[in-house]
Amino acid sequence: MSQPVTATLLLSCPDRKGLVAGVSDFLFRHGANIIHADQHTDQEEGLFLQRVEFELNGVDLPRAELGGAFGPLAERFDMRWGLRFSDETRRVALLVSKQPHCMYDLLARWRMQELPAEIALVISNHPDHAEAARYFGVPYHHLPVVDKAEQEGAVLRLLEQEHVDLVVLARYMRILGDPILDRFPDRIINIHHSFLPAFAGGHPYHQAHERGVKIIGATAHYVTAQLDQGPIIEQDVVRVSHRDTVADMVAKGRDLEKVVLARAVRLHLENRVLVYRNKTVVFD
Amino acid sequence: MSQPVTATLLLSCPDRKGLVAGVSDFLFRHGANIIHADQHTDQEEGLFLQRVEFELNGVDLPRAELGGAFGPLAERFDMRWGLRFSDETRRVALLVSKQPHCMYDLLARWRMQELPAEIALVISNHPDHAEAARYFGVPYHHLPVVDKAEQEGAVLRLLEQEHVDLVVLARYMRILGDPILDRFPDRIINIHHSFLPAFAGGHPYHQAHERGVKIIGATAHYVTAQLDQGPIIEQDVVRVSHRDTVADMVAKGRDLEKVVLARAVRLHLENRVLVYRNKTVVFD
Amino acid sequence: MSQPVTATLLLSCPDRKGLVAGVSDFLFRHGANIIHADQHTDQEEGLFLQRVEFELNGVDLPRAELGGAFGPLAERFDMRWGLRFSDETRRVALLVSKQPHCMYDLLARWRMQELPAEIALVISNHPDHAEAARYFGVPYHHLPVVDKAEQEGAVLRLLEQEHVDLVVLARYMRILGDPILDRFPDRIINIHHSFLPAFAGGHPYHQAHERGVKIIGATAHYVTAQLDQGPIIEQDVVRVSHRDTVADMVAKGRDLEKVVLARAVRLHLENRVLVYRNKTVVFD
Amino acid sequence: MSQPVTATLLLSCPDRKGLVAGVSDFLFRHGANIIHADQHTDQEEGLFLQRVEFELNGVDLPRAELGGAFGPLAERFDMRWGLRFSDETRRVALLVSKQPHCMYDLLARWRMQELPAEIALVISNHPDHAEAARYFGVPYHHLPVVDKAEQEGAVLRLLEQEHVDLVVLARYMRILGDPILDRFPDRIINIHHSFLPAFAGGHPYHQAHERGVKIIGATAHYVTAQLDQGPIIEQDVVRVSHRDTVADMVAKGRDLEKVVLARAVRLHLENRVLVYRNKTVVFD
Repeated sequence: MSQPVTATLLLSCPDRKGLVAGVSDFLFRHGANIIHADQHTDQEEGLFLQRVEFELNGVDLPRAELGGAFGPLAERFDMRWGLRFSDETRRVALLVSKQPHCMYDLLARWRMQELPAEIALVISNHPDHAEAARYFGVPYHHLPVVDKAEQEGAVLRLLEQEHVDLVVLARYMRILGDPILDRFPDRIINIHHSFLPAFAGGHPYHQAHERGVKIIGATAHYVTAQLDQGPIIEQDVVRVSHRDTVADMVAKGRDLEKVVLARAVRLHLENRVLVYRNKTVVFD
Repeated sequence: MSQPVTATLLLSCPDRKGLVAGVSDFLFRHGANIIHADQHTDQEEGLFLQRVEFELNGVDLPRAELGGAFGPLAERFDMRWGLRFSDETRRVALLVSKQPHCMYDLLARWRMQELPAEIALVISNHPDHAEAARYFGVPYHHLPVVDKAEQEGAVLRLLEQEHVDLVVLARYMRILGDPILDRFPDRIINIHHSFLPAFAGGHPYHQAHERGVKIIGATAHYVTAQLDQGPIIEQDVVRVSHRDTVADMVAKGRDLEKVVLARAVRLHLENRVLVYRNKTVVFD
Repeated sequence: MSQPVTATLLLSCPDRKGLVAGVSDFLFRHGANIIHADQHTDQEEGLFLQRVEFELNGVDLPRAELGGAFGPLAERFDMRWGLRFSDETRRVALLVSKQPHCMYDLLARWRMQELPAEIALVISNHPDHAEAARYFGVPYHHLPVVDKAEQEGAVLRLLEQEHVDLVVLARYMRILGDPILDRFPDRIINIHHSFLPAFAGGHPYHQAHERGVKIIGATAHYVTAQLDQGPIIEQDVVRVSHRDTVADMVAKGRDLEKVVLARAVRLHLENRVLVYRNKTVVFD
Repeated sequence: MSQPVTATLLLSCPDRKGLVAGVSDFLFRHGANIIHADQHTDQEEGLFLQRVEFELNGVDLPRAELGGAFGPLAERFDMRWGLRFSDETRRVALLVSKQPHCMYDLLARWRMQELPAEIALVISNHPDHAEAARYFGVPYHHLPVVDKAEQEGAVLRLLEQEHVDLVVLARYMRILGDPILDRFPDRIINIHHSFLPAFAGGHPYHQAHERGVKIIGATAHYVTAQLDQGPIIEQDVVRVSHRDTVADMVAKGRDLEKVVLARAVRLHLENRVLVYRNKTVVFD
């Protein structure tokens, strides 16, 4: 069951002939065994995006030198790129308000080793979930909001102290300010409890009930300065009917929210998501 | 395969004790064998809604007198109600513009006896589908739009001449004016090619592609004066990814549109839909 | 948020005219306000099934006498019936083996008050989950299997001592013997990790991978003496592709299993499920 | 809207380092602009599978010589491979029995240019659909089954005379014999009206109704000598309940069958399907 260590290369650049040949030739020359490769060309934008995962074992360079060796090729093709290794565990912070179902779900998945990451801390503007976090062995920080800027400053300091790599808003019902957003571009994932762009903003289940829709949804997206407008990573839906009250929708929605958020977090941690033009390419 | 003739009673009224007993007692006293019954109470609104289907065979009144006999009870409970018989075939008009897939689909279903109705005519602002209609044996009326009011007048006259009971906008890309809307309240069904309320208005697949959603949808609704805001009858969705161009979404969407519109039309024709407060109750 | 106490009547009997009138008249005469009613007639079998939920408040009889008063009507129509009150919390036992995800999920839902029941105990043939149960404040009984009959005897004694009303096999991988089955007819719910009847028996995800299906599923059903053949309460599915290894299917399947089992348990606890001819009618 | 002509290379071979580099280098050297590429490694089987689509425009070889030029590389890596061009329209035969919905659907899609192929003929063991075929301008061959071997001989002769490339069993309810199967390996697509492997064989909707499943499905697969056991290309499902009679399931199922079969046919025609070990890899 112990997987071999892999490296994952994520890149995007203007589309040109010779790109695929260039990358695969580089990897071949260095002895890399590719185990997954996927690519996408946005023809309208003339943009090429690729994900290549290969075994480190057999590569003729130390991992620390791989990036450097890839540099010239990347430069030639004007690439934005990143290289990650499967044994470098990333540190995740969960932010949560009153409703704990997404937090429970992620903690339970983490304990069952479904998430390739370390959940480093839980931050909440409420004291309610301290005991749950303790049970899962995760430090819990209660940072109530008296002054918004002050609280956000405290949150940001914690994230930095703890070397957090990914911030997950697990039903955190506060809007984050620019300092945190700027510090974690494409690294803050939120779960919105509607099928965006329908029912953005507050009380989406009430809105859905009022409108009489026959299907409700949930959306996981990266957070940007525009509320509920960031790049969508994953969505899913469930059928409702006139029999469903708002409370029933909330309950059905919880199951969606948990699954959709967990999928998005896993896709991110497995380096399967690339962002461009406020959209995502998900190599799943 | 020949089904016994049934009557369907659809009613709504303020919720009160004794309602269910009153209706079922009435039917029992007249010898009716109930084969389906369904009801819903909107507790917030204090509104009771019910659908009861029973066999005509065995009822001790001629069908023409049933409504009259029910009247006093209906009055006592302040009901809005309707009574339909399964052997009274309703006349349907299809309105279509350039894209014929929903028209084809409904005509083929009709020929396969999936729809309990008579498709009486096809009206289009384009000449393109005359041959298809002829193949299915349905009169085709080409009413091009030179002057909007004039064309709508012609459409309305046709609908009246042909004693049309239900108007189906099978990808008819014109907005209907008040005279037609007023004449057919809750009897005009439109298919919108998005998951409403997301992407109302024009070019929803372009909007969806631009936003980067992971799921697209289609919505069948009754037409009201507010564009794309009428009561929703049925919705469904399909997954898309970054690989899907707008053209791919259009193609995937076509399959949704056909199925969602056909379901809505059938639900309406089987007297399963009640409208209140710009929402539907669908007794399926 | 505190709901009024309701009574739920679940009944089935040979279909006859006057049934609906009889029941609704009975409730009306005793002052009951019906808040939900649903019924189904299996025409082939000539069987009528009904669920009626009404507020206790306003009823002119003490709840202890309601059943007695209903008896003569029930007898006249040859009904099998049951009457439950929403404030009578039922006691549930969770049985679990190695894999804890369904157990975690049900315990978290219970704590969040999604389940109208008391989880009275967890029984496992493994010691692994004692700490988790303790965290949720539920007694944990480790009953390892040395001698099958003996272990089952111990399980049965515990269920009886604890006045358990519903047994949930939350990925309990042992086959139960007749003494337990006979004691809890239609009151043991199992989650099978396939879309039954496909891939009954062991290792369904391996079977599914081997067969190359494009969709996998999970099935919650009542347990009978025939393995994986009991009445199905709920099923759901998720799409897979050639990219999914058996391990990926197991992970995707876990999310299904949790949701499908939780839905089935809730449907049962809300008295929405009637069993006949090895099938269920689910009044949802 | 006129797409540039593309070539699609589909290949499979034992997995080895240098494969991806070899193929992409070959294409780069000949000036090919890759517009889609997708690959899969079955690690257990040590098998590599790939689909590469590139524009013909810009390639430095005439199309007739491309295969020859690729040969040495293919040989070195022990590839099974094929090369197709997007402007080579393939000829498709539809076989149909009594139920015409899949035939109608495919003919309508073909007319709407959803299928990159020529529907060359319709063959049926019934005379019923001659007029429909005529409307769509497709020759109709009524070949009733008096003697099975004789009829199949006639079918095979027709398929060969008409240079048919793909045979689609659009609810053709006869089992094909070896001569036809041997002539069209992985080129006969059938739609089975269940979620295989559940309910293989006859009357799957009756079986599903009898078993009381909550979801029904449809499966498109390549036909092999083992009835309903061939490689699955596509599946989909729809929810049913106790309210659905067998006839309702048949009606709901028809919508599934149409969509699932059409998707499978399109995937095949776009050279997106590779078969190995009685499974498919679908590069969609």
